[in-house]
Amino acid sequence: MSEKLTIDGNEAVATVAYQVSEICSIYPITPSSPMAELADVWSVERKENIWGQVPDIIEMQSEGGAAGTAHGALQTGAMTTTFTASQGLMLMLPNMYKIAGELTSAVFHVASRSLAAQALSIFGDHQDVMAARTTGFGILASSSVQVAQDLALISHAATLEARVPFIHFFDGFRTSHELSKVDVLSRDEMRAMINVELVYAHRLRALNPDNPFIRGTAQNPDVYFQARESVNQFYLDTPGIVQRSMDRFAELTGRQYRLFDYYGDPDAERIIIIMGSGADTVRQTIDALPEKGLGVVNARLFRPFSAQHLLAAIPEAARFIAVLDRTKEIGASGEPLYQDVVTVLAEAVREGRIEAMPEITGGRYGLSSKEFTPAMVKSIFDELAKAQPKNHFTIGIHDDVTHTSLEYDQSFEIESDEVTRAIFFGLGADGTVGANKNSIKIIGENTDLYCQGYFVYDSKKSGSQTVSHLRFGPEQIQAPYLIQSANFIACHKFNLINKIEVLRNAASEAVFLLNSPYPADTVWTELPQPVQQRILDLRILLYVIDASSVARETDLGGRINTIMQACFFALSGVLPRDEAIRQIKQAIEKSYQSKGQDVIDQNFAAVDSALDHLYEVSIPAGTSNTKPLDDAVPLEAPRFVREVTAAMLRGHGDDLPVSKLPVD
Amino acid sequence: MSEKLTIDGNEAVATVAYQVSEICSIYPITPSSPMAELADVWSVERKENIWGQVPDIIEMQSEGGAAGTAHGALQTGAMTTTFTASQGLMLMLPNMYKIAGELTSAVFHVASRSLAAQALSIFGDHQDVMAARTTGFGILASSSVQVAQDLALISHAATLEARVPFIHFFDGFRTSHELSKVDVLSRDEMRAMINVELVYAHRLRALNPDNPFIRGTAQNPDVYFQARESVNQFYLDTPGIVQRSMDRFAELTGRQYRLFDYYGDPDAERIIIIMGSGADTVRQTIDALPEKGLGVVNARLFRPFSAQHLLAAIPEAARFIAVLDRTKEIGASGEPLYQDVVTVLAEAVREGRIEAMPEITGGRYGLSSKEFTPAMVKSIFDELAKAQPKNHFTIGIHDDVTHTSLEYDQSFEIESDEVTRAIFFGLGADGTVGANKNSIKIIGENTDLYCQGYFVYDSKKSGSQTVSHLRFGPEQIQAPYLIQSANFIACHKFNLINKIEVLRNAASEAVFLLNSPYPADTVWTELPQPVQQRILDLRILLYVIDASSVARETDLGGRINTIMQACFFALSGVLPRDEAIRQIKQAIEKSYQSKGQDVIDQNFAAVDSALDHLYEVSIPAGTSNTKPLDDAVPLEAPRFVREVTAAMLRGHGDDLPVSKLPVD
Repeated sequence: MSEKLTIDGNEAVATVAYQVSEICSIYPITPSSPMAELADVWSVERKENIWGQVPDIIEMQSEGGAAGTAHGALQTGAMTTTFTASQGLMLMLPNMYKIAGELTSAVFHVASRSLAAQALSIFGDHQDVMAARTTGFGILASSSVQVAQDLALISHAATLEARVPFIHFFDGFRTSHELSKVDVLSRDEMRAMINVELVYAHRLRALNPDNPFIRGTAQNPDVYFQARESVNQFYLDTPGIVQRSMDRFAELTGRQYRLFDYYGDPDAERIIIIMGSGADTVRQTIDALPEKGLGVVNARLFRPFSAQHLLAAIPEAARFIAVLDRTKEIGASGEPLYQDVVTVLAEAVREGRIEAMPEITGGRYGLSSKEFTPAMVKSIFDELAKAQPKNHFTIGIHDDVTHTSLEYDQSFEIESDEVTRAIFFGLGADGTVGANKNSIKIIGENTDLYCQGYFVYDSKKSGSQTVSHLRFGPEQIQAPYLIQSANFIACHKFNLINKIEVLRNAASEAVFLLNSPYPADTVWTELPQPVQQRILDLRILLYVIDASSVARETDLGGRINTIMQACFFALSGVLPRDEAIRQIKQAIEKSYQSKGQDVIDQNFAAVDSALDHLYEVSIPAGTSNTKPLDDAVPLEAPRFVREVTAAMLRGHGDDLPVSKLPVD
Repeated sequence: MSEKLTIDGNEAVATVAYQVSEICSIYPITPSSPMAELADVWSVERKENIWGQVPDIIEMQSEGGAAGTAHGALQTGAMTTTFTASQGLMLMLPNMYKIAGELTSAVFHVASRSLAAQALSIFGDHQDVMAARTTGFGILASSSVQVAQDLALISHAATLEARVPFIHFFDGFRTSHELSKVDVLSRDEMRAMINVELVYAHRLRALNPDNPFIRGTAQNPDVYFQARESVNQFYLDTPGIVQRSMDRFAELTGRQYRLFDYYGDPDAERIIIIMGSGADTVRQTIDALPEKGLGVVNARLFRPFSAQHLLAAIPEAARFIAVLDRTKEIGASGEPLYQDVVTVLAEAVREGRIEAMPEITGGRYGLSSKEFTPAMVKSIFDELAKAQPKNHFTIGIHDDVTHTSLEYDQSFEIESDEVTRAIFFGLGADGTVGANKNSIKIIGENTDLYCQGYFVYDSKKSGSQTVSHLRFGPEQIQAPYLIQSANFIACHKFNLINKIEVLRNAASEAVFLLNSPYPADTVWTELPQPVQQRILDLRILLYVIDASSVARETDLGGRINTIMQACFFALSGVLPRDEAIRQIKQAIEKSYQSKGQDVIDQNFAAVDSALDHLYEVSIPAGTSNTKPLDDAVPLEAPRFVREVTAAMLRGHGDDLPVSKLPVD
């Protein structure tokens, strides 16, 4: 059985890319930076690739330079890769046309991200990749951490045979930063996928003074067009090559992928076609919905777009199709995936390959990591059942201006009771996220449980609020969205309960762990009325610990992370308590090794002490005060600040309708 | 009546852009450079814009800088423009997303050009603009020099009202470098189109310390998506705004444009949809073909793509539609315009706005200024009449690898006998092109004739062959392709007749003017056999002049251009001989003013002397030798050089099939 590790998408991809490359040309950009950083660290540590060499990591002055370096390195016959996103990818475009035009085997790994338009955003959608779809690169989309690792390898294997270079992408933050327990590819599996003869052929195509020829010329009207058409056969062959790489991969690992992976009722009438992590959300929702006749096509190979493979994937009975794009291409007659699907199906009707044109609608979702939830999927399937399903819709927002949005029932959720769902509120740089990452690794590596961790910061990074979303369960967790109904909630900073609705996503009878300066018998009256009401309504079990005072007593100063972690393990029961404590201490030893035995001992003491200071609060029958949440902004603030900024500060920015946002 | 001038597309556009701008940020790139250069010259000459100011011309270090400067200038409220093409436009993409995202009124003028892929090319197609179609810019396409001037103004007018920025583009070289006699817009017409109140509104949106607000922020997942959708209404309104600008323009000038301009049979069954200069070729071909039932849609507003306006433009009877793209987007399920048309029509069927889906096919043409001729248009219309018209075809090349190409009858041509069609062969920098440009201006400005000049160089510029194509006729010349059947051919360098087929495009009974060191009575035997045969077959009238010796005698050294020009006027009869001589002398005075009276006198003498040395050759009944054309390359050259390089040197590169070109 293969090794399992709990890693994020960036690490999963970088691990593969590094080991099958000789040169990585890098320039860091969020959310792809960790790939470049890891490659850099490994190179310094002299970690070897599958051929026993240490890859060269070359950091340039910009992504333009990184792409130029990649182009140059490829022309010397080196196995070359790079990592980027967003504006970085845009700076690579000119070189990408050249690399593709010269039929050069290469893979660019992209943690896809929004482009700066009305505002910059570091978060994830497919706008950057879509801006690169004109370059002639193949494009492979991964839908989870496991898939990102696997398709990373498949893309490197396929490009060598196809000679078409690839963008391999996965959803920025959602996949790039999600911690997930994955089956790790072994070096033998990588070696088995990368055909050495094709590597050698790539070498032989290098520019080399011993075998002089010319590449990178100027062409005139007499021959440019013909030369541009001379590559058609390579692109026609590429889908078959990718599928064969996927088949070979399945033989080696048991994990079978298809260019368009269908899931659902084989006789589905209503289907969704989608790319990236959202495909898993659709899949899980189909399983949870009582209706039959639903299906999803997960589009993995977006370029070259294979009509034949798409048609084979869509059930014959499909009559209503919603194509979802995680991008917005304003001014076009539709988003890119939608247009491709419409074109392919219209041509299939024309050529008699299918009988009638299905009803196809297109929708946008998830721009800049906007959540895409089962409730939204249900709404789309419901829309497809209507007499005239809306086209060019949006989902996940309230568009009260041009009325594109579909409504959805926010209370619909499909969290499984077999899964522990834990949410932690902390402050940036207070150690909460780090401790949670430790917890996931402890559970992932010491139990059979699968796990998932996702961490929400705003882009200010330090000092503002962080929310950690952890899931643990007996099966692979395919829920690429925030926890909607948590059975464990921890608030690491007392004052946050006055500012934001920390219990908004609590499940009924959830456990609520609060770091409180007030003891168990007086804390109740310190809670604002809405929090009290929520605790009563949902019969929430409230536990308090004065973690700050425990930290002070054990000379840890303000660092409460290991204390809260110990309480989480004690209350959640994911691991036996003793085992959990042993593992936390191991993690402490590892984390603080460089800081000396004193710090380690202090943390040990804090863990031991934590459980002695953890108390359940007995909940009264009713609320005891009328204190509302704090005002997010002063009452005398301008209207925009009161209506928009306040909602954003309160954590309700998602609820703001389109009309509240400035157009420029 | 408005002023008429003979100018090229770059000058036509720059004239408008300069006069309605305060700032032009520039960085030169072929074929757009003359726009930037002209703006720079005018600014130095203190030429004023329509508000009586001299625009600032700011040259940056690259197109990235030019776009950044434009973005910055726009944020100060300045009326700003820039000029670019190809890779230059790609470097502007990041700023373009911002400029569009912030709803900033601006126009970028693009002389569209191929992107460097398998090879660089400076020639024209729409790949660059298509790479920018994701940015949110509106895109207006011009199909001729006249239209380029007109839509330049319309785009500046429309962006102020729409707040959507525009790319205004026209075919690189074909339109940017074609000399054409156009109705020039007056300053009053420009003033009437540019609404001062909208200029003022643009100013008020500037970032300004007296009215502080913020633009260019970072947004998080909570609001980015909503903000991205907040601009929808602006894009929905833009097509109507552009059409109203076009209508207002028609009131002022009498020249009416539509977003999608239809021409042809109102009951056409077979139509072509196309963008750019090719639309004129289709139009002229429809007029020349005997069949009824043909039509063409000239797509002028490509973004935002207006389904409603397209549907209104397509005749109800249209059953077979070919959509032609001057770009290649390999790996997509179709080229961009094709996909837009398929999407719009599929949606129209779905929504019941049209009854049945027409048969739509897509084709590529004209990459990198590959000729697009009436013969090709006829072939496409013929294909549409077949039972199963080919889809995803190419036209204009012979694709013997993936068999995409349609065949066409190269002998089919529709040149009008009312039009003088003259071809001149010269060497780079020998003055031939300059003299021809003078001739066009002389005819354009002194007769009612319309004129067109197009000059074919290879990208080496100096020292290699040039071919000038001049047309003169009683009506506006809408023939955006090389002369296929010339009634006048001049060869300014004797030895060229041994190297290339200078008479390949001769019409029957054409006049052939040869600069020959051999006198009229002996020159015949010096001609290679294929040239003799061609003269006999077509009953060509051969004239010789020893221009080099005339030049020497009048102390002009090697400069034969004015001598040959005089002969052209004498033989072509476009102007009365005396008038022609007077005008040539005026042009000489203007051209050589800076070189002193001596040079002017020498040229005067050469002109006077030229006609005395011009002789008709009496043509024998048969050929007199067996001399073939020179070998273009040595016989012992490698096969690629013999088969490919030789054909290119001989001027037959267009005939090379795809299989002869290297894939990388």
